[in-house]
Amino acid sequence: MAKILGRALVPLAILACAPAIVPYAHADEGMWTMDNLPVKQMQERYQFTPSKEWIERVTKASARLALGCSASFVSADGLVMTNHHCANECLQQLSGKGHNYFQDGYSVKNQTEEQRCPAMELNQLDSITDVTDRMQAALKGKEGEAYTKARQAEESAIEKECAGTDAKTWRCDVISLYHGGRTALYRYRRYQDVRMVMAPDQNAAFFGGDPDNFNFPRYDLDMAFLRVYEDGKPAKVSAYLPFDAEGPKAGELVFTSGNPGSTEREVPLADLEFSRNMTVPFVIDLYSALDGALWQYSRESVAHHQEAQERIFGIENSLKVYRGRVPVLADPKLLDAKAKSEASLRDWINADDSRKKIYGDPWAKNAKALAVKQQIFKPYAMLEGSMGLQGELFSYAKLLVRAANERQKPDAERLTAYHDARLPALEAELGSTAPVYPDLEKTELAFSLTKLRQVLGADDEIVKMVLGKAAPDDLAVSLVTGSKLADPKVRLALWKGGAKAIEASQDPMIVLARKVEPLARALRKRMDDEVAAPSRQATEAMAKARFARDGVSSYPDATFTQRLSFGQVKGWDENGKQIEPFTYFSGLYDRATGSDPFKLTKPWLDAKPHLNMKTPFDFASTNDIIGGNSGSPVIDAKGHAVGLIFDGNIHSLGGDFYYDESTNRAVAVDSAAILESLKSVYKNQALADELVKGHL
Amino acid sequence: MAKILGRALVPLAILACAPAIVPYAHADEGMWTMDNLPVKQMQERYQFTPSKEWIERVTKASARLALGCSASFVSADGLVMTNHHCANECLQQLSGKGHNYFQDGYSVKNQTEEQRCPAMELNQLDSITDVTDRMQAALKGKEGEAYTKARQAEESAIEKECAGTDAKTWRCDVISLYHGGRTALYRYRRYQDVRMVMAPDQNAAFFGGDPDNFNFPRYDLDMAFLRVYEDGKPAKVSAYLPFDAEGPKAGELVFTSGNPGSTEREVPLADLEFSRNMTVPFVIDLYSALDGALWQYSRESVAHHQEAQERIFGIENSLKVYRGRVPVLADPKLLDAKAKSEASLRDWINADDSRKKIYGDPWAKNAKALAVKQQIFKPYAMLEGSMGLQGELFSYAKLLVRAANERQKPDAERLTAYHDARLPALEAELGSTAPVYPDLEKTELAFSLTKLRQVLGADDEIVKMVLGKAAPDDLAVSLVTGSKLADPKVRLALWKGGAKAIEASQDPMIVLARKVEPLARALRKRMDDEVAAPSRQATEAMAKARFARDGVSSYPDATFTQRLSFGQVKGWDENGKQIEPFTYFSGLYDRATGSDPFKLTKPWLDAKPHLNMKTPFDFASTNDIIGGNSGSPVIDAKGHAVGLIFDGNIHSLGGDFYYDESTNRAVAVDSAAILESLKSVYKNQALADELVKGHL
Repeated sequence: MAKILGRALVPLAILACAPAIVPYAHADEGMWTMDNLPVKQMQERYQFTPSKEWIERVTKASARLALGCSASFVSADGLVMTNHHCANECLQQLSGKGHNYFQDGYSVKNQTEEQRCPAMELNQLDSITDVTDRMQAALKGKEGEAYTKARQAEESAIEKECAGTDAKTWRCDVISLYHGGRTALYRYRRYQDVRMVMAPDQNAAFFGGDPDNFNFPRYDLDMAFLRVYEDGKPAKVSAYLPFDAEGPKAGELVFTSGNPGSTEREVPLADLEFSRNMTVPFVIDLYSALDGALWQYSRESVAHHQEAQERIFGIENSLKVYRGRVPVLADPKLLDAKAKSEASLRDWINADDSRKKIYGDPWAKNAKALAVKQQIFKPYAMLEGSMGLQGELFSYAKLLVRAANERQKPDAERLTAYHDARLPALEAELGSTAPVYPDLEKTELAFSLTKLRQVLGADDEIVKMVLGKAAPDDLAVSLVTGSKLADPKVRLALWKGGAKAIEASQDPMIVLARKVEPLARALRKRMDDEVAAPSRQATEAMAKARFARDGVSSYPDATFTQRLSFGQVKGWDENGKQIEPFTYFSGLYDRATGSDPFKLTKPWLDAKPHLNMKTPFDFASTNDIIGGNSGSPVIDAKGHAVGLIFDGNIHSLGGDFYYDESTNRAVAVDSAAILESLKSVYKNQALADELVKGHL
Repeated sequence: MAKILGRALVPLAILACAPAIVPYAHADEGMWTMDNLPVKQMQERYQFTPSKEWIERVTKASARLALGCSASFVSADGLVMTNHHCANECLQQLSGKGHNYFQDGYSVKNQTEEQRCPAMELNQLDSITDVTDRMQAALKGKEGEAYTKARQAEESAIEKECAGTDAKTWRCDVISLYHGGRTALYRYRRYQDVRMVMAPDQNAAFFGGDPDNFNFPRYDLDMAFLRVYEDGKPAKVSAYLPFDAEGPKAGELVFTSGNPGSTEREVPLADLEFSRNMTVPFVIDLYSALDGALWQYSRESVAHHQEAQERIFGIENSLKVYRGRVPVLADPKLLDAKAKSEASLRDWINADDSRKKIYGDPWAKNAKALAVKQQIFKPYAMLEGSMGLQGELFSYAKLLVRAANERQKPDAERLTAYHDARLPALEAELGSTAPVYPDLEKTELAFSLTKLRQVLGADDEIVKMVLGKAAPDDLAVSLVTGSKLADPKVRLALWKGGAKAIEASQDPMIVLARKVEPLARALRKRMDDEVAAPSRQATEAMAKARFARDGVSSYPDATFTQRLSFGQVKGWDENGKQIEPFTYFSGLYDRATGSDPFKLTKPWLDAKPHLNMKTPFDFASTNDIIGGNSGSPVIDAKGHAVGLIFDGNIHSLGGDFYYDESTNRAVAVDSAAILESLKSVYKNQALADELVKGHL
């Protein structure tokens, strides 16, 4: 799995995301906010109640990578544990000049050699503040555009006050939980000097590759270690998780603390049908084609292979998630249950005039919003979602043009991503020294322009504006060849030059981004005002009615903010076959074929005689996680790190919509496997020592 | 559109195909068998009743290309009119040594230079015989395997008697119409010496390419002319369609006579849901990925571009069809109507004990069959459907192994495709001199092996058997490099050598095909006995009950046999915008951009001043057609050819499931455009003369 989807899928992820209230939780279900843990359930099921100190340490020792992953501090000297696949981008970016760190792994002789990741930011949660009343006051009685604007303005004001004058150090996000039933302000400490400490080779990190992804038994050492720096020195952090050398036992109570990206457990049935009939087939279609194109691209040369690997990983990972939704969204169990639950709520509202007055007809409101969404979905995805204009260069150009435009407005009137408090993050992104590969750019752009025309038709206004009389291939070559945006200095100059510089630029990518901006904005505006706003109000009304009727409280749908899940190390029954919760080093060697993606590198082959084959490798647990939880620590009752989440089993793909304790499993690297491999395979005694001691 | 899907999709097309009775037809709906034309409807709507001579001529002048297209005779000297996209394969195969006939077009100075298509067979319908009673007697009381076997045996006996000792000249197919409500024997005259007469350049034939495919207004000259030979001379045919130099008028009554491949207008709701939830997403996923891979492959060099074009055309065409099914299969109009209609039929059956006894519970029977299909669908598609083992070489190997096996059995026990009466067609296929491209083979095979493992998982029995410890790329290279099956002599030697030669062969493709044969057969057997047989019996029972209740008779679902449709030249209303039925030469030049796929070749640019710009180019009509109708003539009331079907509009993609006269349109080349372009663009006066005179 399962960092939150990268570049091109974000817009669709946002479309699909509608936080919601889950009416009741049972079993090991739940992605709980740290200020509302299911203490009673944990005590009843596992005779465990976390102490205040336990909660405080777990909260502060957890972190988030801004690109969409989770992480944790595992030493007092700023050492961070996350997944290899969360560090992909950095490893790729540091490579070159004879090094392929992504493929071959990364290690340093000592701490001073750790290299900075060009585009990595780590956020550590500092505080959560309730701003529900303030937000509700600002939105009261507003509809459509007025609602969208009021929301933007109030969020901007809150975030600005929170970050104060030091937006480089603090990041503040207003987060809507329980469909606006609660609004919370999350304040994060930002670390932008994040350095690479250690990563295993890709063969070990992603052993079994795409075929084994989301499967179990599994043998992945999907780990990476980073370190945050302050003033050029390893940061001293206030909390970290002591590292457990043994790993957990079968049946043991374990927790994950991470940032699940989004779930749709309480979205209305109509939204699920929209996903099934439109979003899912559309994304699978487009991404499979891109996957095929890059598959062939990467067979063309060693350089192409290297350039495309990280992108392919992201695409194939997303594809597996979307493929997993096909059977779930066709499952009558899910659909019928939802239909019944909504019908009963509707009946309850309609049985009483005062209720009708309070809640209205949220289903009709939502249906109207979905009808608009149906109409603009494809042009929105292709243009505003950039699925028809892929590649790093256009993505930079679009960001520059949009930001220049937005920054001219008062903070309160800007789109969320362009609030003053968020500008430093954008600037950092533009200043990234990550390389841009011209061949890959041309291929992705030519591919997506071809799709743009295919999806919207040759007579479409957007297609005519973008392509004119040019062929996609020719246009892609001339845009990529003519643009200077691969150079971070050029990008930063345009950023600093603001609207004037953008207006004057003759860079062909900027020219194109400028040209399509009005159409893209118009689509965005309709999506915000005519889809997102009424749809949000509708689901909020449903949620409030449910609260009023059932009076139950539970966890909110995932929002890429910190959540705790609890569960136990446990296998499952797969059509009558018992799947054991642990795999072992011996199984890794049994599964190896000598060919990708089941190939072991030399250090692994050499180490074989020296390894304890009975050491656990990966394990499954009942923890309720989802994309974005990648890199989450697995924590025991003592608050120690006993594992590292990196995936879920195939059944966990239904977790977007419901949690099924009988089969849904999180998959983690065992802490014992981490230590054993550091010592015996990678000969990195220094890092092993730091983990065991808890400091450098 | 829209020849019946080629190589790799055939197995799925077969899975999806379930002939059925349409209870009533209205408007211009219907794909009518020639012996049951809707005379009353035609008279009422258009004041036209065809004469016996008219029917006789249209029947005999129509033909079918065995690869999945329709065609017609347009001169007494065996001249055949069909689509360029139906001649793709032949044009590709004749190319090489400095010629690219597919791209550049094909013409000859005089008839004696016409080259033979290496793998083309044309069938002319000779007779239709009713064999319903005989078939029903043979199947009575049989279930599952016994049913499958009895069916195979009886079909074999009927076909054998029909072809007699001259299976090289006659092809006999037992066809189940109206779900076995009627069984008919179709006897065809086979022409295997089919030569290329004329084809335009690909830019003109497929102007607008994939973006315009299934769209209208349209500007395609999607035509090709072939000629059938007997004893080395142009065949004298018994009937042909006189060619109309003017084309039809708006509103004019027109007919198509062709071979629609398959429709699913009366399959049960449960089957549509299966398509929506399984078949359609699965095919789109796999084919989009292959499309992407070949898109990139064809960008690598001119040779790769040429090698892959025909395959890409086929894949993109299929993709468009499957994409078109997504909204149709999600349309509550269709689903609700079907649910209601089935509920009422079920109630009717259950209201009477004797009916219950006759018809049983066909829905339960069908549901059981679909549950098995669900279970084996993916392995079946990947292995027996060869979607996990693509490429010409494996396809030859599989055919050789399967045929060697089947030919050892008595005719009556063989699978249908291996009956004695069909062996000459298989031998011709194996003897084809069409080139095999090693790079393309390696790419397709490596791609599909990767998919095989992805779809079934690394631990699957089939995957382990095929891949062993090898990587897909390595295995593909060694199989393609090691195989000699690209040579037709080698293939024919193995064919002639039979089971002994196959058993002794060390050719790695044969070895692989031999190895997987038992597993593939086991899947085939389950699909035949546990899915197809009960499902067929279930739909037959539903159809018979409907007959008994409503007493109505109409046209059967399409079966790639000759059908007549009637309708008129007519545009449609597209969301309030009126689409005119004709396009003109002037519009072609307006739409041209100079870039693919909107690029005109030099002959077209040179001819511009000499053309009558008001000449009609393509036109839309209400004729009810579907894939397989490609190449059908459009015929006027006099029985003259006024056009050439090559596509449908985007709404016609719903035609698989229902016909909607308000928007469903067939799209044809106007006969006037054919003549004008032959004379003024391609300077082929001889062919123009033959069309006008009706003989050489």
